[in-house]
Amino acid sequence: MRIAELSQRSGVSVPTIKYYLREGLLPAGARSSPNQASYGAEHLRRLRLIRALIEVGGLPVAAVGAVLEAVDEPDLPMYKLLGVVSDSLYKPEIPTDDNDEWLRARAEVEQLLVQRGWSVPECGPAVETLSAVVVKLAELGYAAWSSEMLGHYLEAAERIAEFDVGYVLRFAEREAVVDGVVVLTVLGETAFAIARRMAHQQVSARMLGVEPNDR
Amino acid sequence: MRIAELSQRSGVSVPTIKYYLREGLLPAGARSSPNQASYGAEHLRRLRLIRALIEVGGLPVAAVGAVLEAVDEPDLPMYKLLGVVSDSLYKPEIPTDDNDEWLRARAEVEQLLVQRGWSVPECGPAVETLSAVVVKLAELGYAAWSSEMLGHYLEAAERIAEFDVGYVLRFAEREAVVDGVVVLTVLGETAFAIARRMAHQQVSARMLGVEPNDR
Repeated sequence: MRIAELSQRSGVSVPTIKYYLREGLLPAGARSSPNQASYGAEHLRRLRLIRALIEVGGLPVAAVGAVLEAVDEPDLPMYKLLGVVSDSLYKPEIPTDDNDEWLRARAEVEQLLVQRGWSVPECGPAVETLSAVVVKLAELGYAAWSSEMLGHYLEAAERIAEFDVGYVLRFAEREAVVDGVVVLTVLGETAFAIARRMAHQQVSARMLGVEPNDR
Repeated sequence: MRIAELSQRSGVSVPTIKYYLREGLLPAGARSSPNQASYGAEHLRRLRLIRALIEVGGLPVAAVGAVLEAVDEPDLPMYKLLGVVSDSLYKPEIPTDDNDEWLRARAEVEQLLVQRGWSVPECGPAVETLSAVVVKLAELGYAAWSSEMLGHYLEAAERIAEFDVGYVLRFAEREAVVDGVVVLTVLGETAFAIARRMAHQQVSARMLGVEPNDR
């Protein structure tokens, strides 16, 4: 198909498609004449993936580029691909420190990971962010709560991951598995965050005896 | 204490504290002389809450203002407070539509909420975002998966919320409960997102037979 049809079918404007082509997010079409290229179903699909990562996942264009580069790397182990995905997902820039509080928080987080049987990642960002949560909880007077809360969250996250990864492993081809893991990690993160916020509303209304839709 | 001590104990600079005072995030100190105000433990705590919401929750200053205003409203029902918190949390601006696909997606989401026994919120943002996930999953070829995935997520989110809300309901005073719910909703969202990303790495490494720290 020509670029106009690709635009019409994907809902992405021609200038935006050209921008993705220049940035290397979308592979070039097959040249059909000096001024024309033709695009196939794989371009349409890639375009939809790009839009989903940006619109629902909230990824900036540069991060989408890094994720797609990892997706296209046939020999990259899955956990490394997921590391790229994880690093590219939105997270606030959290200032960290090296004082006693922080050292205690990191030790607490690492102990929880070990207890769960997870290998403590060498790459620090995830541990740093969880440590920041522990430090902030302590500052706000919830020091006694952080281990129980994080332990519970890690367990719940593992159950969700088993469900997600179990689903994509039904696919026979590596390409489909990789695609599925990326989609479920990114779109699922948005979905789960929303589900959790709604659940806090529903559960607190129920536990406090008020109907959420009461006015 | 004077503003310099408040700054030193909170780690927040004096100009930033003055900015929060001007924006109404922090209540004024008690005037001890025409040019001097004195601050107490409640100012220190509020300052720590502001920093936690900004640094770990990723909330913009305006959103922190809306959350604190709701926290300070003594008669606001908890579920309404949580609505304010939920709306103020970072989420990508997702373009929505009214075509058949979207209507089907919204109907699917509402049915899942009803099945779970949750009241469908009148305020649309949460339903809109979940519908966007359903639409994007369908576009990417995972239409058959979205109901099962969302159903599973809603259930997992409810268990987490029961655990979180159950914890803060141990507190006797409304003020402590409100504070706890806000802290756990916001800081917990960051913590859970990170836990879920780590879990995807760990579980896919385990299921695919690779140690995550292998090089």
